[in-house]
Amino acid sequence: MLEKTTRMNYLFDFYQVLLTPKQQSYMSLYYLDDLSLGEIAEEYEVSRQAVYDNIKRTEIMLEEYEKKLHLFEKFQQRNRLLDELSALLHAKLDKNQAEHIYHILEALKELD
Amino acid sequence: MLEKTTRMNYLFDFYQVLLTPKQQSYMSLYYLDDLSLGEIAEEYEVSRQAVYDNIKRTEIMLEEYEKKLHLFEKFQQRNRLLDELSALLHAKLDKNQAEHIYHILEALKELD
Repeated sequence: MLEKTTRMNYLFDFYQVLLTPKQQSYMSLYYLDDLSLGEIAEEYEVSRQAVYDNIKRTEIMLEEYEKKLHLFEKFQQRNRLLDELSALLHAKLDKNQAEHIYHILEALKELD
Repeated sequence: MLEKTTRMNYLFDFYQVLLTPKQQSYMSLYYLDDLSLGEIAEEYEVSRQAVYDNIKRTEIMLEEYEKKLHLFEKFQQRNRLLDELSALLHAKLDKNQAEHIYHILEALKELD
């Protein structure tokens, strides 16, 4: 369950801009704020089942976006490559010599 | 016009998976294969106006996806940073010493 939650958090992060405002709200309350389905249902004055169905559909949409655009997968690949690059450079260059290089690596990581 | 064509080619490349098959076909024939609206209309047995309207709507959709997801913008930023990094490393490391590093940089560029 924790693994699924982590994955959904990432997918939500990458694709939330493609969701409707209601989908964004439910997902954010459920996955980021850790509210229960019942608590969300109460806040929006709808049934628990309606919230559940909406979140399940949204999860499927997020997985479909990932299957098409691969943003999370590429983010992981890019991070692995950048970590590898960073380790190699640490081994070859001393810190003062390479300060600018590390700034660029940081900037690349922050781009995603 | 050339600049717009280049931009549309990139946006199409990043977001075509989010378009319908018909949108993909029209855009591909128009922007990649350089067919005229009339030629596409003839091939699909529809009016030239119908092709025009479809392509215009698709262009707007592509710009809307870019406004939300910024994939093309990030691709450009990432490439600038990688070029800068590459130039710095060329200045600091000789080629034999750094072959693995350049492989990683190439892999990062190919990820987009």
